[in-house]
Amino acid sequence: MEAEGKEEVADKKIEDISLKELSRKLEEFAKARDWEKYHSPRNLLLAMVGEVGELSEIFQWRGEVDRGLSNWEESDKEHLGEELSDVLLYLIRLADICGIDLGDAAIKKIIKNAVKYPPN
Amino acid sequence: MEAEGKEEVADKKIEDISLKELSRKLEEFAKARDWEKYHSPRNLLLAMVGEVGELSEIFQWRGEVDRGLSNWEESDKEHLGEELSDVLLYLIRLADICGIDLGDAAIKKIIKNAVKYPPN
Amino acid sequence: MEAEGKEEVADKKIEDISLKELSRKLEEFAKARDWEKYHSPRNLLLAMVGEVGELSEIFQWRGEVDRGLSNWEESDKEHLGEELSDVLLYLIRLADICGIDLGDAAIKKIIKNAVKYPPN
Amino acid sequence: MEAEGKEEVADKKIEDISLKELSRKLEEFAKARDWEKYHSPRNLLLAMVGEVGELSEIFQWRGEVDRGLSNWEESDKEHLGEELSDVLLYLIRLADICGIDLGDAAIKKIIKNAVKYPPN
Repeated sequence: MEAEGKEEVADKKIEDISLKELSRKLEEFAKARDWEKYHSPRNLLLAMVGEVGELSEIFQWRGEVDRGLSNWEESDKEHLGEELSDVLLYLIRLADICGIDLGDAAIKKIIKNAVKYPPN
Repeated sequence: MEAEGKEEVADKKIEDISLKELSRKLEEFAKARDWEKYHSPRNLLLAMVGEVGELSEIFQWRGEVDRGLSNWEESDKEHLGEELSDVLLYLIRLADICGIDLGDAAIKKIIKNAVKYPPN
Repeated sequence: MEAEGKEEVADKKIEDISLKELSRKLEEFAKARDWEKYHSPRNLLLAMVGEVGELSEIFQWRGEVDRGLSNWEESDKEHLGEELSDVLLYLIRLADICGIDLGDAAIKKIIKNAVKYPPN
Repeated sequence: MEAEGKEEVADKKIEDISLKELSRKLEEFAKARDWEKYHSPRNLLLAMVGEVGELSEIFQWRGEVDRGLSNWEESDKEHLGEELSDVLLYLIRLADICGIDLGDAAIKKIIKNAVKYPPN
């Protein structure tokens, strides 16, 4: 029982990774490689645009794609996960370098959108 | 003391918003507005590209920008937070609709990068 | 007859606008407004990314779109023409500021592609 | 004299390649490879976003870049010319498939901009 409980906690921790935790990991990553000097706002923005391009390339010749990607190869899904992650990681790093709390900003934006577009 | 402690917990909860929680909020948001029918993978991808464009517009005529955006107006920083959030929210929604666990994929990508680029 | 002939020439001239002519017009445009100081390579690149975003917004919620845009409103087609042009004009200007002959580069790229992908 | 004149014409033809000529070349290229079936508007748009990403990658870690790219390697300039061309070629093809006369639209947009932003 206890073991199960602990496993659940461990799983939850990984599943529920927060933006702050990712931000910390990226900062450590950059520091350990002396890459902070490259991480200026516009460098990171262009790097993110580069990754958006790679993400788009996955979808470019496929015509419309159905939700859940039912007929995709497992390797294509893995590739997609990597490109989505690359966009996310540069986005988090860009926010961080700009001094923007991305989680906080995202919550505020959802609240603002909820006011702008009231539910049916 | 106790009050302080509670406040800290409340703050922490907001600050440490997880990708999963944002994903759930976005799903509820779409359901409540009957927008799920618009949320196909390529629609969401193009919507995200649109937001990347708006994010780029903030940086386009500024030349190099220093970390922390020391000389930016508060309103420009708020605008930046909104555009960063818009990219994030469509990215999370895109991953979700594709059946990709973005937090899991991001952790895996960081580990993969750490192997590819060993620290100094 | 002669009048018709002249008109045809005039039409052809407009229809067959060259990249060089557009480049010249954009240079004059920037000079006349003292905008050259803003036209650095990365500024222009980010401005172009901004326009790619606006172009994507036109297509974002439409699902698959058929060639010729048969069921589009005339005003939507006009808007599309404007956004396509905005991308083109920043692209030409970016090439120019970088000292790249875009027409020459495009011809070379087509030839390179023809070698890489031989016809059936 | 005559030889010079002819050379000038030949040079002019290559230098002054028109959007229409590039459009025709791309149509022939697609037809000869039976690629027309892939050239739907959103496929071409995403392919163009992919190339914008590759273009951005060239600029991503460089910080501000000066006009004329004075300190760039020749091979980097050549690479840049190729990526600029890739964006251009997909843009022209996208316009064509959508039934938009890009040269005409570009001229109209320059005129519209000239009205919107009068010269100093």
